[in-house]
Amino acid sequence: MASIETPVVILNLKTYPQATGEKAVLLAQTCERVSNKYDVEIIVAPQIPDIYRVAKAVEIPVFSQHMDPGEPGRFTGHVLGETLVEAGCAGTLLNHSEKRMLLADIESSVEKANKLNLHTVVCTNNPAVSVAAASVHPTAVAVEPPELIGSGISVSQAKPEVISGTVDMIRAVNKDVIILCGAGIGTGDDVASAIKLGAQGVLLASAVAKSNKPEDVLVDLITPIAK
Amino acid sequence: MASIETPVVILNLKTYPQATGEKAVLLAQTCERVSNKYDVEIIVAPQIPDIYRVAKAVEIPVFSQHMDPGEPGRFTGHVLGETLVEAGCAGTLLNHSEKRMLLADIESSVEKANKLNLHTVVCTNNPAVSVAAASVHPTAVAVEPPELIGSGISVSQAKPEVISGTVDMIRAVNKDVIILCGAGIGTGDDVASAIKLGAQGVLLASAVAKSNKPEDVLVDLITPIAK
Amino acid sequence: MASIETPVVILNLKTYPQATGEKAVLLAQTCERVSNKYDVEIIVAPQIPDIYRVAKAVEIPVFSQHMDPGEPGRFTGHVLGETLVEAGCAGTLLNHSEKRMLLADIESSVEKANKLNLHTVVCTNNPAVSVAAASVHPTAVAVEPPELIGSGISVSQAKPEVISGTVDMIRAVNKDVIILCGAGIGTGDDVASAIKLGAQGVLLASAVAKSNKPEDVLVDLITPIAK
Amino acid sequence: MASIETPVVILNLKTYPQATGEKAVLLAQTCERVSNKYDVEIIVAPQIPDIYRVAKAVEIPVFSQHMDPGEPGRFTGHVLGETLVEAGCAGTLLNHSEKRMLLADIESSVEKANKLNLHTVVCTNNPAVSVAAASVHPTAVAVEPPELIGSGISVSQAKPEVISGTVDMIRAVNKDVIILCGAGIGTGDDVASAIKLGAQGVLLASAVAKSNKPEDVLVDLITPIAK
Repeated sequence: MASIETPVVILNLKTYPQATGEKAVLLAQTCERVSNKYDVEIIVAPQIPDIYRVAKAVEIPVFSQHMDPGEPGRFTGHVLGETLVEAGCAGTLLNHSEKRMLLADIESSVEKANKLNLHTVVCTNNPAVSVAAASVHPTAVAVEPPELIGSGISVSQAKPEVISGTVDMIRAVNKDVIILCGAGIGTGDDVASAIKLGAQGVLLASAVAKSNKPEDVLVDLITPIAK
Repeated sequence: MASIETPVVILNLKTYPQATGEKAVLLAQTCERVSNKYDVEIIVAPQIPDIYRVAKAVEIPVFSQHMDPGEPGRFTGHVLGETLVEAGCAGTLLNHSEKRMLLADIESSVEKANKLNLHTVVCTNNPAVSVAAASVHPTAVAVEPPELIGSGISVSQAKPEVISGTVDMIRAVNKDVIILCGAGIGTGDDVASAIKLGAQGVLLASAVAKSNKPEDVLVDLITPIAK
Repeated sequence: MASIETPVVILNLKTYPQATGEKAVLLAQTCERVSNKYDVEIIVAPQIPDIYRVAKAVEIPVFSQHMDPGEPGRFTGHVLGETLVEAGCAGTLLNHSEKRMLLADIESSVEKANKLNLHTVVCTNNPAVSVAAASVHPTAVAVEPPELIGSGISVSQAKPEVISGTVDMIRAVNKDVIILCGAGIGTGDDVASAIKLGAQGVLLASAVAKSNKPEDVLVDLITPIAK
Repeated sequence: MASIETPVVILNLKTYPQATGEKAVLLAQTCERVSNKYDVEIIVAPQIPDIYRVAKAVEIPVFSQHMDPGEPGRFTGHVLGETLVEAGCAGTLLNHSEKRMLLADIESSVEKANKLNLHTVVCTNNPAVSVAAASVHPTAVAVEPPELIGSGISVSQAKPEVISGTVDMIRAVNKDVIILCGAGIGTGDDVASAIKLGAQGVLLASAVAKSNKPEDVLVDLITPIAK
C-alpha cells in the first residue's frame, strides 16, 4: 500500500449533518485542495455509506470510520475490508471511542487489513491501551488522553508529559507505528505542540467539520507542518 | 414514502464476493430487468459501502442491510438513517440473524426510519419474536422459522402451520404489517407455497446471489407471482 | 412457581455500596420484616454474586438483576437460569436500562425462565417497547416512562396518561402480564398514583437502597397497598 | 494480595451441570484436598452466582469467571470488583473466549482489580493478542493457541514453538506476567510439556469438571508439578 506521509492530518467526518452525502464530498475536496497547495498529507474519513462517492471525487486517501473482522460470505450488515477496498478506501479507523471494539476483533481486523493493503488507525484512551494497540501492529495509533477530552484543554495548553509520556511508552514496544494525537486539537498551535511532543500527526473532527469556514480552519491547522 | 407492492421479493446480497462492488451493481441491474419484465416488486439490499453506487445505477428500491439508531452528530462508524436517505436508500433490514439488535434499538430505529420515510424489515426467528417485532410497527416482518434454517427443508416441503401459524399470530396484533418468509426459499414452488400460506413476499439471499445464473433463478422464483 | 401477589414492590439493589454483600442481606431482611408486618409482597434483587447469601437469609422472593439465555455447558461468565435456581432465585429482571438485551435474547430468556419456574420482569422504556415485551409472555413488564426518568417528576405529579396510556396498550395484547411502574416512585403517594392508574406494582431502587432509613422509606411506600 | 504460587493450575467450572451449585462446592473441595496433599497451587473459578458458597467452603483461591469494569452505583446486572471481593473472590478471569471484552474494558478492569487486590487472568487467542494483553499488566495471561482448540491436538503433541514462540513474545514486553497454557491440556504429560516450554501453569476446564473421577484426573494433571 502507499505509505502514509508524516506529519499527517486525518479528518473524521463523524455523522455531522455538515459532512454527510454531497457535503462530505465538498469537504473532502476542500481537504484535497489544501493538501495539494501546502504539500501536506490529509486523509478524510467519511461515513460508510458515503465512502464510494467521496473516493470517486478525490485523490487524497479516503479511510472508513470502522471495519468489522471476518471473511466474505455469510454476514449481513457487516463492513468488510474487501468491500472497503472495492469502494476505494485506503484504510480505516478502528476502536474509535464512539465504536469500541473487542480486543480480539481489533487484532483480527488489523491483520486482515494488512493483508488487503488497508491502513489501520487504532484509537486509544490511555497509555496502557495505546501500548496494547501498538503491539498488534497497526499503521497508526491515535491517542486521546482523557485529560484533553471534554476538558476544553488543548494540547498546546496541556502538560507536555500527557503526550510525550505516551509516545515514550509506545516507542518502547513499536518503533514503526505512527503516533497521532487524537484530542485537544483546535488550532495550528495545537498541531505544532503535538508534533513537538513526539506525535507524527493528528486525528481531528469537529474543529474542521463543524466550522462555517472549514478551509480557513484547515489551513491554520496545517500551517505548522506545511512544507 | 412509496409503498411497497406485494407480493415482493427482497434480495439480501450479504457479503458474498459475487455480490460486492461492481458485481453488486450488476446483480441489482439483473433484478431491475426481471422486475420490469415481469411486473414484480424486487428490492435489493447490498452491503453498506455499496449502497450509493447501486442506488445510482438502478431505479428499483435499494435497502440497507442494517441501520443504527441515533441522531446525526457525535457518532463514528454508525450507519444513520439520514445518511442512508442521502445515499439513495428506500429502506433497511433490521435485526438480521447475523446482526441482532437490542429491542430498544429496533424500536427506536423503526421510529426514526418512519420519520425519514424509510421502510423497515425486521427479521425474526420465531412466532413470539415476530409478534414482538410487529408491535413496534415496521413496514414488514421477515420470519425465519428455525425448522427451515440449516435443515435443508424448504417452505414447499415444510408443514404448512410453520408459516401459517406465525402469520395468524402476527395478524392478531398488526393488520397492516407485510409478512415475509425469510428462510427455506430456493425455488418458485417455495415462493408459491409461502404466498399460499399467508406471506406477502420473501426475503432471500444465497439462492440468487451465489448462483452462476442469477437471472434464471430469479425468473423461476418470481414466476408464481408475476402479473 | 409460586405466583406473585399484587400489588407488589420490587427493590433493585443495583450496585450501590449500601446494598452490597452483608449490607444486601440486611436490606433484604428489612424488606422481609416490612413484608410480613404489612402483608405486602416485597421482592428484592441483589447483585448476582450476592444472590446466594441473600436467598439463604430471607424467605421473601429473591430475583436476579439479569439472566443470560443459553443452556448449561460451554459458557464462561454467563448467568444461566439453572444456576440461579440452585442459588435460591425465584425470578429475574431482564433488559434493565443499564443492561439492555437483544430482542432474541429477551424472548429466549423468558421462554427458558418459564420452563425453570423462574419469574421474569422485562424492563421497557416506552409504550411500543412495552407492548413488544408483553408479547413474549414474561411474568411482568416494568415500564420506565422517559417523562419520569431524570426529570425529577414523580408519578403522582405526572400527567395520568403517561401511565394509563401504556397500561391500555399492554392490556390490548396481554391480559395477564403484571404491569409495574419502574420510574418516578419516591413516596407512598407515587405508589398510590401508580396503582390508581392501572399498574399492579412498582420497581424501585435508590429511594430505599440509598436511604439512611430504608425501613421508614419502605413503610411509607407500601402504606397505600398494605392490607 | 497474596501472590500466586507457580506452577499453578486454574480450573474453570464454566456452566457445566456437573459443576453448578452444591456440585461446584464439592469440586472445589476436591481441588483443595489435592492442593494440600501435593502442595500445588490450585485455583477454582465457579459461576458467578456460586462464588460466595464456594468461597465460604474452601481456603484455596476462588476466582470469578468474569468481571465488569465500572464503579459502584448505578449499574444493574453488572459484576463489579468490590462485590467480588465481598463475596470472597481472590481474582477473576477476563476476556474468556466465551466472554470476549472490549480492549478498553479489559484495561480498566485490570486497573480496577489491581486497586482492589484482585488477581486477573486475561485469556487470549494468539501471540499478538497475548502481547497486547500482557501490556496492560494483569497477573497472568492464558494463551489458547488456535492450533490446540477444537483440533484434538494436545500440548504434548503440538509443535513446541506454538507455546514457546508466544512465551518469548510476551516476555519481550512483560518480565513479570504469569503465562498460562489455556488449551490442549488433558493429562499430566500436557502439563509437563507446557511447563517445559515456558508456561508457568495451565487453565483448564472440561478435563476435570466433566470427568466422572475428577480427583483422579486432577492428581494425574498435577503430578509433574507436585513438590
